[in-house]
Order: sequence, then C-alpha cells, then structure tokens
Amino acid sequence: MRPRQPVRTLAAELNEVDSGRTVTLMGHVHRRRELAAVSFLILRDRSGLAQVVLQRTEVPDGGLPPEETTVQVTGVVTANGQAPGGVEITTPTITLLTEPAQTPPVELWRPALNIGLPTLLDHAPVTWRHPTQRAKWELAAASLRGFRRTLDAAGFIEVHTPKLVESATESGANVFPVDYFGRSAYLAQSPQFFKQQLVGIFERVYEVGPVFRAEPHDTVRHLAEYVSLDVELGFVRDHRDVLAVLRDVLVGMVAGIEEYAGPAMERFNVELPSIPAEIPVIHFRDALAKVGAPADEPDLAPEHERVLGAWAKQHLESDILAVEGYPMRKRPFYTHPQPDDPTWSNSFDLLFRGVELVTGGQRLHKYSDYVAAIEARGESPTAYAAYLQTFAHGMPPHGGFAIGLERWTARLVEAANIREVTLFPRDLNRLSP
Amino acid sequence: MRPRQPVRTLAAELNEVDSGRTVTLMGHVHRRRELAAVSFLILRDRSGLAQVVLQRTEVPDGGLPPEETTVQVTGVVTANGQAPGGVEITTPTITLLTEPAQTPPVELWRPALNIGLPTLLDHAPVTWRHPTQRAKWELAAASLRGFRRTLDAAGFIEVHTPKLVESATESGANVFPVDYFGRSAYLAQSPQFFKQQLVGIFERVYEVGPVFRAEPHDTVRHLAEYVSLDVELGFVRDHRDVLAVLRDVLVGMVAGIEEYAGPAMERFNVELPSIPAEIPVIHFRDALAKVGAPADEPDLAPEHERVLGAWAKQHLESDILAVEGYPMRKRPFYTHPQPDDPTWSNSFDLLFRGVELVTGGQRLHKYSDYVAAIEARGESPTAYAAYLQTFAHGMPPHGGFAIGLERWTARLVEAANIREVTLFPRDLNRLSP
Repeated sequence: MRPRQPVRTLAAELNEVDSGRTVTLMGHVHRRRELAAVSFLILRDRSGLAQVVLQRTEVPDGGLPPEETTVQVTGVVTANGQAPGGVEITTPTITLLTEPAQTPPVELWRPALNIGLPTLLDHAPVTWRHPTQRAKWELAAASLRGFRRTLDAAGFIEVHTPKLVESATESGANVFPVDYFGRSAYLAQSPQFFKQQLVGIFERVYEVGPVFRAEPHDTVRHLAEYVSLDVELGFVRDHRDVLAVLRDVLVGMVAGIEEYAGPAMERFNVELPSIPAEIPVIHFRDALAKVGAPADEPDLAPEHERVLGAWAKQHLESDILAVEGYPMRKRPFYTHPQPDDPTWSNSFDLLFRGVELVTGGQRLHKYSDYVAAIEARGESPTAYAAYLQTFAHGMPPHGGFAIGLERWTARLVEAANIREVTLFPRDLNRLSP
Repeated sequence: MRPRQPVRTLAAELNEVDSGRTVTLMGHVHRRRELAAVSFLILRDRSGLAQVVLQRTEVPDGGLPPEETTVQVTGVVTANGQAPGGVEITTPTITLLTEPAQTPPVELWRPALNIGLPTLLDHAPVTWRHPTQRAKWELAAASLRGFRRTLDAAGFIEVHTPKLVESATESGANVFPVDYFGRSAYLAQSPQFFKQQLVGIFERVYEVGPVFRAEPHDTVRHLAEYVSLDVELGFVRDHRDVLAVLRDVLVGMVAGIEEYAGPAMERFNVELPSIPAEIPVIHFRDALAKVGAPADEPDLAPEHERVLGAWAKQHLESDILAVEGYPMRKRPFYTHPQPDDPTWSNSFDLLFRGVELVTGGQRLHKYSDYVAAIEARGESPTAYAAYLQTFAHGMPPHGGFAIGLERWTARLVEAANIREVTLFPRDLNRLSP
C-alpha cells in the first residue's frame, strides 16, 4: 500500500504560513542541539533552513537523529522573533526517512566550510550540501537560464553535437583518444566544426555541453572537462557583430542571476559585472604596448590580462574588455584574417575582470580560403572532406564564441581555483568522485 | 573599414511589410529559374522562403548565382497573389556573400528529399538544410525548451555532470574506454550515479547531455551517442511520484512544440501525443499475460511493446503507457524493490506509441541496502566508495527517469530509423560527418 503523502511545506515558505497551522517539512538534519531544557533541530531543504524546537519530553528515545539524516517533521508553526526567519516549528513529530546518517567528513552546519581543496573535492557529494558551496552552482545554473533565454529570444536554436569525433584535426594536441569499436576516435575539444556546419542549416545556433581538453598542466584555471557555452551565427559583417551578441548574452546571464539566484548572490556579496552598452575593444597590438610587452609577443600572458582588466575597470568602468586582432599565426586555421592586414585576425578574447573568459571571432566562409588555409598548414583538404562540404555548398560570413561556464562562476565568486566551483572536476590527477 | 549593415528583413516577416517598401533579405539561393521573359530566385533564410522576381535586364551578367550560394537581395516588396505568402521582391539588387556554391549532392529545392539513408547521413551538413529535414530538429529543440520550462517551474535545477568516469561500474558492459593521461577511464553511459548524488544536494535536478553506449548492434533505434534528458528527485513515496513528474514533463514538451515549432509540426502533420491527466500503468506481470508471453519472461520484446501500445491507444485513448514492476533481476543494482514482493521492482518503462521512450523508477536510498545489493552481485562496496558516500550520509527516498531525445523525435515524425532525426549520428559504422 502506498504511504499517504502529506502536503509538503518548504522552509522558505514558512513565513507565509499563519501561526498555529500544522505543517510538514522534509529535509536533512542540518544540526541538532540537545540542551537540558529544550532541544533544537535545524532542518535543511532545497529552499533553506527551518528551526524545530523540542521540549524535553518531545525528544525521541535515543535522542535526535544525527546530522544529515533525512527526516519528515510535522509540527505547529509558531512565531518567534529569535528564530531565523521569525518562525519556528513546535510540538514536532519527527519521522526518519532513512537510516541514521554516518557522521559527515565535514561539519556542514558551520557557517563557513573552512576546509582544504582536497577535502572539498574528495567528499564532493557531501561538501556540496553546504549552503555556501551549493550557492556557487546556483549562480551557474541561473546564468545558463539567462544565456538560453537571451538567445532563444534572438532567433537562435539549441543544438547538440557529437562528442565522439573521427580525427583530432581542430588543433591536433591535447585530445583524449577513445577506443571506438576497435577504431580510434577522439573526444571533441569543442563543437567548433559542428556549429559552423549548423550555421549553414539554422543560421543561429547555441549549445551548452561538455568539452574535453587533455591539458597536461595542473593550473588553477584549467580542467580536463568543462561546460562550454557555444554560440555561432551567420550573416555577420565581421567579429564586431559577434561581440554585440556576446554583450547581450552576458547581460542576459547577469539578469538570470538576479532573477533566479538572488539568495546565492547575497551569500557571496557578488558584485554583478558592469557591462557597458557596447563592449570596449582594444587591438592586440595596442594591448601589448599598453602592458609594455614586446611588439612581437604572440599572446598575452595572464599577468598582461590582469593589467588590462584593471585598466578597463579604472578607465572604462567596465568589468569586461575585448582584445581583438590576435596574430593569425596563433589562431586556428578557420580564423578570418583582418581584411586590411592579414598579419592580424578578426578574432578576439574577452577578459572578464582580467581573466580570459571567452574566445571568439569571425571564421573563414569561402571554400577556396579553407583549402588554402589547410594546404598552408601542409595538410590535405581531403582529411577535412566532411567539414568542407559546408563551405563548398555556400556559407554566409559567420562567427561565434565560447564561454567557459566554470571560469564565469569562478570570477563571480572570486574563487582562487576553478575546481571550487566545479561539481565534479576532472583534471590530470582527478577522475573521481 | 566595416561594411555598412542594412537592416535585415526575414522572409517570414515580408507579409507584414507595406507594398512598395524597399527591404534587404539575406539567405541561400534555394532555387533559381531563368525563363525567357522573367527569372525567379527563391531565397531561403532561417524563417522560410521568399520569391525574388527579375526582369530579363535585371539578371546579372553570367546569370543568377547557383543554388545554395549565400546572397544579399535588396528590392521592393510587391503584392502578388500568385507568390508564396502573397508577396514577392521586385527590381532586386543581388550581392553574393561568398563564392558561387558548388552543386549540392541533393536537390534541396524539391518539396521532398527522396534519398536513401546513406546519402542523407553522408551529406548531413547539406541535407539538413532541406526544410523538411530541418523541421525534425526544430521539433527536438522546442521539446527541450518545454522540458526545461516545466522543470524550472517545479523547483528543479539544471546540472552538468562528468562524462569521463573512473569505472564502468554501472552496468559493466557496452562502455567506451578512454586513454586518460595514460590511465584508463570510460565514457559515462548515463549520469545516474551523479544525479543521485546531486539529489542529496539540490533535491530536484535535471540534465540534458550526451550519453555513450558502445552498442554492438546495428538497429534502427540504437545510437552509440545520444542526448539524454535526465531527471531525478528526492522525497518521493515511490516510483508513482516519479511518474507524476514524468507526466508533467511530457505535457510540457508537447506544449513547447505547440508554442515554438508550429510550422515544423504542420510540415509533418504531427499528431501531438494524447497524454492523460495520470499516466496509465500496467504491471509487468499483467503486461506479459496481456501479450500472451510466458510468465517467466524477463523483459518485453519490441513486438510486445507494440501490442501494448496499440492496446493503450485503443482502450485508454493514451499514446503513453507505463509498465511497472520489471523483475529485479533484470534491473540495475540501485533499483528499489517492490515493497510487498521483492521479485519485482519499483521501476518502470514508458512506452510511447508502442516504443520504449523512458526508463525510470525509485532507487534504493539506504546505505545498508546498497552494501547488500553490491555484495549480492559478488562485488566489493569499496569499488563504489565515492558513490556510497552519498547514502552513508543521509539520502531521501528518491527516483528519476531518462528520456531519449532522438527516440522522442523519431516517434513524433514516425521516422523508420532513429538516424533520420539525429543531427550527426554515431553508431557501429559511423563516426563522421
């Protein structure tokens, strides 16, 4: 026979319930405190915390269930100015929904999780239960809602592209080999080739999905698998039209946080990014000069990015800054050159508070340009036959970008290490939990 | 210098523009027809088709650009009852946005793509441009919007879990091995273990992402990589509470199609699924009896599912039917048994028009039950240490389900082969495009 299901009230809904009403809560025991006269059980559910008060005679034989045990609590809503939220539950009946829980590896009821990174990650299924830790992902999820909402409204369509690919042609390095029914395959480093093909079909596409990088470096900002927010669109003039979409997307992600993750935002005192009506742009050449780097440097070092970020904040009142024109020789073969000087490219990186968050740009769209670019690398266009179909049969001028979700969240909460905001990080040394 | 960008009008917007106004369209040449007196260019953009009419003197030297070339067309909006949509473009100026396109491998301008499956798939970047083909994915994308909207409104949070996993513990078979920095890893067959861990954190989670099955069979309904719509929720009584959420999700997916993919729906004459207020349920034991199968059959054959689907349609006026109670010995170790008879399980399959679309059920939630279930398989709980943390430290009764996106779309458009609705299918023989 099925157990009867009482109507469940969430902790956050309690202050809307009239005093004296009987309600049923369900959640984890966040903390128990048995005192001489009175005992407290703090219950945690997905919405927040609720205080349950027990007189000595109301405490079950054997005491209150240990922290993290899941329970059902039925009791009376009682106003109490001293209680969190101004309301508590009295005369409760507590029912265990599972066995008494083992003692967690960390004290989740403490206001801050003061633990080292290895403990945080080794016990991820438990440490993510801490309200502060959980709030980090709530910011990420709210950003995704804002991302999709912005693009849906602008005529983009969601796509899902294969993560198993035949060849490591895009960059050649840092790919994970897969045994594919006895043949060799690779994990996609990005949906780049596919999203371009899909622009030929849908014009405007986006994808939220995993990408895989066999990064041999153990740094605070690289992961072997991360969530990439990919956008690609056709009928652009150049990369500046792509930047305009990126700007709207970032504004949409911020709006998503404000709308769906208010409490998480407050928990971190998140200062929401200041995003101007038009993304400020500096040319790579000028960026090198500004940071005092030699004019023949092929890329910006992290320290350069920090300096540029600080400069944008101070002089442009912007948390974001696009650096355009990266040297062609350092960009992938499908990059569109800068029309007036093909030393440079129509590509950009977007710095968010001094850290690279987004890479994007205009791509080549002419078949003959692809053939020339591939041959210039000493490769055969035949190896790219499937991809090149798209361009042989007519493609619009197009471009796009990719945002790293974890980098976005890390900067929002000022995490020292990207792993702190990743649910179950994968890196050189970590493949579990 | 940046080219000036004219305001772009989409084909579908033309009938809202006053006659006599000059507009600029951008798109692919869908078809060109040069006749003695007058020529036609049908332009295709993401919104639909537009007819462009050229007098003999207006045709460029060398003729109209070949099919699939991307062009910009500026001309005058002119009412014409004979033209598709009642409007056409006259006195046009046509500008090529790329090189003239090579002749496509299929005639995309024909109303139907009458080609074999290998041609469809080998030339996917081009064949998906056909409006009928494209409409299949539009149904899928609209379903995803409805899926997320329903769950967002019900307090679920989106998650993204690793696709690289340490061990093939979930089922042991049909996994793809990955070379992970010299160690062995596997591609996740499902987010099952992760979504359960995340229920301990967020209570209600969903994920849309790729799953990987090294299916050694070449069938019309299996793929090596597909998009799984995963849902998991805590504080349920049993699998029937999970079915109630599944019902709302299916209704939401249908609403998404109605709202966002009306034209695609009409193209296929899609008969939207009839979903009752409560999903009809039949016990596995009774299902076997109904189809005349022996009582000791461990599973339903595809033919059985077809018969059950037809029965549900005829007698219950429902396109869906849940079969509950599958024998425990055929379900994964984390499956919750049926309380009154542990021969059976609290799990279900959902048949959609006679084909398995969803698998789900209630999971074990007690740590001691997991240890016993793993030991009963002759395995050591130590191998599952990371996963078992979740249960040792308190989990609610919970359950969930997974919907295969491509199966959903295939049934909607009555595709004979699931590959017809998959953007870039991956199977035993196919890893490209």
